[in-house]
Amino acid sequence: MDNSVGIVQAQCAQFDTPLTFRSGAVLPRYELVYETYGTLNADKSNAILICHALSGHHHVAGYYEGDTKNMGWWDNMIGPGKPIDTNKFFVVGLNNLGGCHGSTGPSSTNPDTGLPYGACFPVITVEDWVESQARLADRLGIQQFAAVIGGSLGGMQALQWSLAYPDRVRHVLAIASAPRLTAQNIAFNDVARNAILTDPDFHGGDFYQFGVVPTRGLRLARMLGHITYLSDDVMADKFGRELRTEKFNYGYEVEFQIESYLRYQGDKFAARFDANTYLLMTKALDYFDPSHDFGGDLNRAFARATADFLVISFTTDWRFSPQRSREIVRPLLHNRRRVSYAEITSAHGHDSFLMDHAHYFDIVRAYMGNVSKEFTA
Amino acid sequence: MDNSVGIVQAQCAQFDTPLTFRSGAVLPRYELVYETYGTLNADKSNAILICHALSGHHHVAGYYEGDTKNMGWWDNMIGPGKPIDTNKFFVVGLNNLGGCHGSTGPSSTNPDTGLPYGACFPVITVEDWVESQARLADRLGIQQFAAVIGGSLGGMQALQWSLAYPDRVRHVLAIASAPRLTAQNIAFNDVARNAILTDPDFHGGDFYQFGVVPTRGLRLARMLGHITYLSDDVMADKFGRELRTEKFNYGYEVEFQIESYLRYQGDKFAARFDANTYLLMTKALDYFDPSHDFGGDLNRAFARATADFLVISFTTDWRFSPQRSREIVRPLLHNRRRVSYAEITSAHGHDSFLMDHAHYFDIVRAYMGNVSKEFTA
Repeated sequence: MDNSVGIVQAQCAQFDTPLTFRSGAVLPRYELVYETYGTLNADKSNAILICHALSGHHHVAGYYEGDTKNMGWWDNMIGPGKPIDTNKFFVVGLNNLGGCHGSTGPSSTNPDTGLPYGACFPVITVEDWVESQARLADRLGIQQFAAVIGGSLGGMQALQWSLAYPDRVRHVLAIASAPRLTAQNIAFNDVARNAILTDPDFHGGDFYQFGVVPTRGLRLARMLGHITYLSDDVMADKFGRELRTEKFNYGYEVEFQIESYLRYQGDKFAARFDANTYLLMTKALDYFDPSHDFGGDLNRAFARATADFLVISFTTDWRFSPQRSREIVRPLLHNRRRVSYAEITSAHGHDSFLMDHAHYFDIVRAYMGNVSKEFTA
Repeated sequence: MDNSVGIVQAQCAQFDTPLTFRSGAVLPRYELVYETYGTLNADKSNAILICHALSGHHHVAGYYEGDTKNMGWWDNMIGPGKPIDTNKFFVVGLNNLGGCHGSTGPSSTNPDTGLPYGACFPVITVEDWVESQARLADRLGIQQFAAVIGGSLGGMQALQWSLAYPDRVRHVLAIASAPRLTAQNIAFNDVARNAILTDPDFHGGDFYQFGVVPTRGLRLARMLGHITYLSDDVMADKFGRELRTEKFNYGYEVEFQIESYLRYQGDKFAARFDANTYLLMTKALDYFDPSHDFGGDLNRAFARATADFLVISFTTDWRFSPQRSREIVRPLLHNRRRVSYAEITSAHGHDSFLMDHAHYFDIVRAYMGNVSKEFTA
C-alpha cells in the first residue's frame, strides 16, 4: 500500500438538466459516479481528469475501506510520488455515462418505466461523454483541467476534450489510442457485438426483465478482445503450445493453457460486466472520428485544438498500433501544436498502457512534472 | 473458361479397412470424394496431390456439367498451361475425412445407428488425414507423388506427407503455412470453437436430430476467421470507415461497409458449412506439431524428410506470417534438405495464397516446370 492514495470513497453527482446526445436522444436526468484523489488548489488549476477505456470505471486509484484488495485500475500510475502525483494534482476519475459501475447506464432504472433502461438507453458517443464530463467539471468548480488523460478509448475522450473545449484543457495525454478506428478494429468490435446481439439470452437488450444474462455472448466478446490486447509474442512467451494436461485429450474441453486463460478471463468478465454497456462502448469507439465533419481531413479537424499533447504508443500494440498514434501526432504538428511523441518498446501489446514499465512511467512522470510547474500548489 | 480443365466429375472411393486415428478411435469404413485432372502417365510418376485448408474440398479446378459458375477453388492455379499444368501433371484433389462435402464426416450417416455421426465422429488430426490420403493414393495406383501441395492447413498436410511417407513424395509445396500454431492462432480457433460449442442450437454436436443448425456460432466463427485472413491494410483500402448509408444510425444494425461484408460472409458460410467439421478442422490445426514427439525440436522432427521443398509466404499474412514459414525453412536447411523459399510482397494477407499474383504464380510455375522435367509425360 506504499505510495497509494489509500482509502478512497466513490461519490455521486446528480444531474437534472437534460443531456442531448449526438443521436438526438435526450436523457432527462442522470448520475455520474466519480472519485477524487489529492487536493484541489486555491485557484483550481491543478485538476486532472482520467478517462477510462472499454471496461474501466471511476475506481482509478486507492482502495475502499475494508477492501484493500480492490485497488484502482491505474493505481500504479496515480498516487503520492507516482508519475501522476497526487501530492501535486487533484485527480478526478469517473464512470462514464452508459457504464455499469454506478453511473446511469442501461442497467439503471428508467424513472419513466420503473424498469431497467435496457434497449432504451441511447447509443452514446465520445462527444456525449465529454459533454457529461464537462458538466461534472462544472459541478466540481473546475473551469480548466491541467490535463485530461486516457488510454485507448480513454485517449479518444482526451482528444475530444481538446476539440470540444480547447479553453478547458491545457494538456492532453493520449496513450495507446487512435484518432479513429480502422476497418479491422471496427470488424473486431462487430464480431464482439454480434456475439452479444445473437445470444438468445440478450432479448434485444431487455434481458434484465427475463432474469437472464447473455453470458455466452459477453464471454466470447471478451475472449476475442483479450487476444487483441496481447501481442503474439507475449502470448507465445506466456503460454506457447503448453498443455494443461500431459496429453492431447482429442475433445473440445480446455486443452492448451491459452484456452484456459481465455475462458477464465471470459467467464470472469461475463459475470460482472453489463452486455449493453459493452455494446455502447464498442459503438462509441467505432463512431469516434474528429475528421467526420471535415471530409475526413484530420488536419482541419485538429485546427481547433490549443492544448499541448503527449502521445504515447507501444511497439507491439497491434490493436492501436504506433501508426495510429502517429496519425494523431501528424495533424497536431501540421497545426503547429506542441506535441511530444514516445514510442515505447514493450512486449505486452495494447495492455502495455496499464502496466508498469520504467521508460513509459519516466516519460509520463517527466511530462507531468513540467505540467505541475505551471501552477502553484 | 479458357485454360480451364473444363467439365469435371467428382468420384467416390469406398474404404472398408478400419482406420485407427491418433486419438485411438477407429472408423470401420469411410468414403472419400475426390476429383482428378490431367492424365496419369505410364509409370505413374506425374501425380500431384492438392490438400485443402479449413473450408476447402475436392472441387479444386474446372466446373460441373451444367453448372459453369461453380469453379474449383484453385482453378486459377491448376489447369492446362497454368502454374500447376494439367497437360503435364495428373492432379488429385479430395475432400478430407471429417469434411462436409461428400467424404465421410460428422453429418454422414453412422451405419451403426442410422443417425448422423454428430458428436460421435472422432477428432481427427493432420496425421490421420495423410493416412487416409495414402490409402486413396494406393487405390489410384500412385506409389509416389511428384508433389504434394497445400496452403495454410493444406500446407501442414503436405509437410506431414514428407514426414510420414518420405518415400512417397518427391516435392512438397507448403504455402502460407506453419510447422505448428502459435498461442495466438490457437486462441483465435478457441474463440471460434466456443462460438459454436455454446450456441444453444449445437446440442453437443447432435443438432441434426433436432432439425436445427448452430448458425449463430458458425457465423461468428467465420466472421472472426475472415478478419484474420485479410490484412489490416487491405481492409482499410477496401472498406475503410465507409458507411452503408450516409449517416450514423446510432443502433446495432449494419452501419459500416466492413460490417456488411463480414455479416454477409458469415451468413453465406453458416448456410453451407457443417459446424462439426469446422470444429474438427480447427482442432487439427491446433494439434499439428511435428516436433511434439521430439521435445519441441523441429530440427529433429524434420530429419526424416527427404523431399525437396518450396515454401512460400506473403508479407501481410499475419495469421500465418512469413516468420512461421521461416520456421519450416530453418529445420529443413539444418537437415541439408533442398529448400526454396519465397516471401511474396502482397497486400492481401493470408488470403493471398488463393489469389492471382504474378510473382507468386511465376514462382510456382517455374518450380513445377522443373518438377515436370523429372519424368516423361
